[in-house]
Amino acid sequence: MSKVGVIMGSKSDLPVMQDAIDILKTFDIEVEVDIVSAHRTPEKLFDYGKNAHTRGIQVIVAGAGGAAHLPGMVASLSPLPIIGVPVKSSNSIDGWDSVLSILQMPGGVPVATVALNGAKNAGILAAQIIGSSDPVVLEKILKYKEGLKQAVLETAKNL
Amino acid sequence: MSKVGVIMGSKSDLPVMQDAIDILKTFDIEVEVDIVSAHRTPEKLFDYGKNAHTRGIQVIVAGAGGAAHLPGMVASLSPLPIIGVPVKSSNSIDGWDSVLSILQMPGGVPVATVALNGAKNAGILAAQIIGSSDPVVLEKILKYKEGLKQAVLETAKNL
Amino acid sequence: MSKVGVIMGSKSDLPVMQDAIDILKTFDIEVEVDIVSAHRTPEKLFDYGKNAHTRGIQVIVAGAGGAAHLPGMVASLSPLPIIGVPVKSSNSIDGWDSVLSILQMPGGVPVATVALNGAKNAGILAAQIIGSSDPVVLEKILKYKEGLKQAVLETAKNL
Amino acid sequence: MSKVGVIMGSKSDLPVMQDAIDILKTFDIEVEVDIVSAHRTPEKLFDYGKNAHTRGIQVIVAGAGGAAHLPGMVASLSPLPIIGVPVKSSNSIDGWDSVLSILQMPGGVPVATVALNGAKNAGILAAQIIGSSDPVVLEKILKYKEGLKQAVLETAKNL
Amino acid sequence: MSKVGVIMGSKSDLPVMQDAIDILKTFDIEVEVDIVSAHRTPEKLFDYGKNAHTRGIQVIVAGAGGAAHLPGMVASLSPLPIIGVPVKSSNSIDGWDSVLSILQMPGGVPVATVALNGAKNAGILAAQIIGSSDPVVLEKILKYKEGLKQAVLETAKNL
Amino acid sequence: MSKVGVIMGSKSDLPVMQDAIDILKTFDIEVEVDIVSAHRTPEKLFDYGKNAHTRGIQVIVAGAGGAAHLPGMVASLSPLPIIGVPVKSSNSIDGWDSVLSILQMPGGVPVATVALNGAKNAGILAAQIIGSSDPVVLEKILKYKEGLKQAVLETAKNL
Amino acid sequence: MSKVGVIMGSKSDLPVMQDAIDILKTFDIEVEVDIVSAHRTPEKLFDYGKNAHTRGIQVIVAGAGGAAHLPGMVASLSPLPIIGVPVKSSNSIDGWDSVLSILQMPGGVPVATVALNGAKNAGILAAQIIGSSDPVVLEKILKYKEGLKQAVLETAKNL
Amino acid sequence: MSKVGVIMGSKSDLPVMQDAIDILKTFDIEVEVDIVSAHRTPEKLFDYGKNAHTRGIQVIVAGAGGAAHLPGMVASLSPLPIIGVPVKSSNSIDGWDSVLSILQMPGGVPVATVALNGAKNAGILAAQIIGSSDPVVLEKILKYKEGLKQAVLETAKNL
Repeated sequence: MSKVGVIMGSKSDLPVMQDAIDILKTFDIEVEVDIVSAHRTPEKLFDYGKNAHTRGIQVIVAGAGGAAHLPGMVASLSPLPIIGVPVKSSNSIDGWDSVLSILQMPGGVPVATVALNGAKNAGILAAQIIGSSDPVVLEKILKYKEGLKQAVLETAKNL
Repeated sequence: MSKVGVIMGSKSDLPVMQDAIDILKTFDIEVEVDIVSAHRTPEKLFDYGKNAHTRGIQVIVAGAGGAAHLPGMVASLSPLPIIGVPVKSSNSIDGWDSVLSILQMPGGVPVATVALNGAKNAGILAAQIIGSSDPVVLEKILKYKEGLKQAVLETAKNL
Repeated sequence: MSKVGVIMGSKSDLPVMQDAIDILKTFDIEVEVDIVSAHRTPEKLFDYGKNAHTRGIQVIVAGAGGAAHLPGMVASLSPLPIIGVPVKSSNSIDGWDSVLSILQMPGGVPVATVALNGAKNAGILAAQIIGSSDPVVLEKILKYKEGLKQAVLETAKNL
Repeated sequence: MSKVGVIMGSKSDLPVMQDAIDILKTFDIEVEVDIVSAHRTPEKLFDYGKNAHTRGIQVIVAGAGGAAHLPGMVASLSPLPIIGVPVKSSNSIDGWDSVLSILQMPGGVPVATVALNGAKNAGILAAQIIGSSDPVVLEKILKYKEGLKQAVLETAKNL
Repeated sequence: MSKVGVIMGSKSDLPVMQDAIDILKTFDIEVEVDIVSAHRTPEKLFDYGKNAHTRGIQVIVAGAGGAAHLPGMVASLSPLPIIGVPVKSSNSIDGWDSVLSILQMPGGVPVATVALNGAKNAGILAAQIIGSSDPVVLEKILKYKEGLKQAVLETAKNL
Repeated sequence: MSKVGVIMGSKSDLPVMQDAIDILKTFDIEVEVDIVSAHRTPEKLFDYGKNAHTRGIQVIVAGAGGAAHLPGMVASLSPLPIIGVPVKSSNSIDGWDSVLSILQMPGGVPVATVALNGAKNAGILAAQIIGSSDPVVLEKILKYKEGLKQAVLETAKNL
Repeated sequence: MSKVGVIMGSKSDLPVMQDAIDILKTFDIEVEVDIVSAHRTPEKLFDYGKNAHTRGIQVIVAGAGGAAHLPGMVASLSPLPIIGVPVKSSNSIDGWDSVLSILQMPGGVPVATVALNGAKNAGILAAQIIGSSDPVVLEKILKYKEGLKQAVLETAKNL
Repeated sequence: MSKVGVIMGSKSDLPVMQDAIDILKTFDIEVEVDIVSAHRTPEKLFDYGKNAHTRGIQVIVAGAGGAAHLPGMVASLSPLPIIGVPVKSSNSIDGWDSVLSILQMPGGVPVATVALNGAKNAGILAAQIIGSSDPVVLEKILKYKEGLKQAVLETAKNL
């Protein structure tokens, strides 16, 4: 069974990051959730980044706010695809800080960045990554997209 | 053999997007390159997005500048993971337009966005996505990262 | 009778877009309202864009938020003048994302962009476009502008 | 025959605005070019805005840089659809000043804003406005769009 | 007696602009308040700008929001020093639109811009302008500044 | 005879600030030029700010780049109207730093801010301030504005 | 015993700046708090900046909002390390004004800038500066960092 | 003798960072230079951050561009004061990415941020930190500031 690691820099990021966990479960993908702070638990960050791929995790979703170093540092340590979720935290400068800290990675170390607070899309992207080699999950993605369409068409009909 | 589709909105994006093609080849991943303009060839966009996954493509890398709709529209049509490369085009407002047009996708339709002009990282990310289920490619990623490290250590030694 | 198509990416855009509908009705212009999501109903987008001009629509007003691709994609598909309304949605980065996604269209495919949440102005602009060849509507625009003036003069008098 | 007025705040805007003039001529639309400075020739601005529609002009394309007041002030005075072109002038703050000065018009007085330096698109939009009631021009727009498509397909073939 | 004209684009600007009126009165400077909308009452704008200096007004304070053209257009028409107050209106993009529309005037036509919503400072600046040639007002400015200092020193003492 | 003080934070600001000096001379206004650095010569700043008004200076034009504190600190010390010129210096973040450091003064201490690198307008504004109480200078301002108009009309004629 | 000076431009900054005071006390570092306004009490600013180091203060923490000149002006006057806290005040343009006014100091006069409203970090940084030569304080910093780590690990365990 | 560690993420940062090294040498402070990449040599980053204070380094100056994680990650690992230098790298979005990635650190882990490319100021700040407990260095800082003043006064005299 496929497994996605969902980590965040602080428990205060959980209300945003829960969307990633929830959507992954609807795709029947196993989720391992943890708090890993780049700035307060650097040793844990190291262990996590170095070993995630060795214990069956295929994709890592990492959310953080402000000067958000968690996604990029995990990308530094792990060979897996890392999805970064910029979280709009309380003293953020309108979210620009977390967006740019996650997006603008130097050549050699990518982070797959999603929209500000876009944890739901991070979960879907993780599922798509698994689905790129797993026909069962790919089929679920196709059904999910069909569902999005039907919902809009329904709403339009009832306008 | 794994296959990545690399598309761009205009031939003028090729100097930037070539970095994605080049790095993918160093990972021995097959690359299919095409020009697909969301705004000038919408029918081709439709065909491309609807069918890419049916002919063996596993990941799509899409680059575009300005009001960059190509990555998001392919994401609308395809179940595959889409990597978006914001290209800093000539009349861009410092690149902010392409960054935000690609990054800020609505819930349900993610685009894995990389840094401005970050086509090299888009290629590496595509390889990591393939590597998440392909141990041979994963091994190559690990070696690539080791190479990055050795290059820095060498430079530091010669400072 | 003249007809304007008003479309939006999601029903959540309706509170903003209603202003366009309302003002168009005061100019006795027929309005056809629909929900067309570039990202969730791409086929409907295609049908809409390809055919709007063939069934009597003269101007299209399209509103969307975030990475707002609806106005630009309709502009890709339709020969009609497209008016884009950047909607400030909930996870928007202060509206910059929708403004730039709609405004910064590449050469060849214009979108007539109005202010953030400026649906009322989109409706007036649609009426002005019709008025540019229809003297009756032109006269109504002139009266509308006279009304704006009188209202300010009245307020100034009562200061 | 249809007529479009193209005005600009300074002769230094002409290299940018020429694109609007050129494209309009390819659509066989008559163009009347003038320099009208909101800040240096306010009386001329008044005459122009008040009378353009009375002498056969159907659409006005107005370009200006910095604190660009020309498009909005013509929109204040004229009942015609006004297309605003933000010009990136020498001491501009990256073009943001002209973009926001033109785009963010108050309710009641719209300006159809195009991309920074997007004079070509302003010309196309003016043609589309005329085409919305003139089937001959509409046909030309359809052909123009077909030409854009063929050019991309050709380039893609030769990649 | 010295006279300052305080104008604003809409009555909704009054809560902000009242600060200018109030502070000018504490300097015993006569204030003439009016609503002059650049976009809705262009003729009144013309009359106002052309004639203010002929009826004894020495300085004009003009406040407006969004694409704020009032201060710059009055500066176009009047030889007097014009103080512009960027007002943060409801659909403003964080106030940037009014700030840049007022500040970035082209060479030849200055507007003395103050901080966002800085009507109080606009009033003080108008008094300073009068004080630059009127020793009685200059003395009041000196006293006002002394008062600011004493208030801070008092607060600091009671910390 | 009227006198304007023109100061700047560094000799590297002189190429920009020269425009203020030149235009003031065309209005036959005496100019006193000096370099006063808020950060490197704070004592000189103090002397300058405290005494300028006592030796006949009526208006101060102060230019500075980056974290530009000179205009605001002179405004803190002097009762005169202070005109601030944001200078786009070499390591500036696109000029935003100097614009905001000069514009966003707190309540009580205004700086009359002009456009980025807008030293010419600062000189004109200084002349307008003097002209607000000096009919001879006011007349020169009116002639200057007439000259601006004629130049545009001439250019338009020769288009 | 070590001593840190904490100053702010206005009493309204105290709720933010209290965090610096509180954290410094937990490190048993003496704190001297004062209100010093660059714009309203320039003489006090001068005295403070010139003399702080002569009466035993080792580090100065200065907080201010808007066009925040206090940290930079104290840095101009004092040889001590100055830590600047950008405070997001009421009419701030999203905090950008205070951030840039404090951060972008010219060569020769540094200010150690912390995050928007980051007074707590300013206090920790002041302690680290003292700890760089005081092994007792260094030890407390190490313990503080260990505490941060344990708190995260605890939270993660209870997830 | 005091010792400052100067590190940077890439050799391409050296032209900027050399200013820090040079100015520190004029204060007779020992400098240890190294390349430490947060993203390519995370193990070296760990060693460096954990041990710098144990081998006599008192302050660390860290420069990096783009999504600049080096200063913040060293701050995570070391109890020393960390000075961060945002470097404007080639694909930077005008420097905003490195500024915000370094400045906006979360509570508990400060980085003393200086201006974009402000390595010279980083060096001076490091000297001031040492000078806060070392009277000999403090005296040199006072002389350095006196030198800055004399240079400006000299330039002003020769204007």
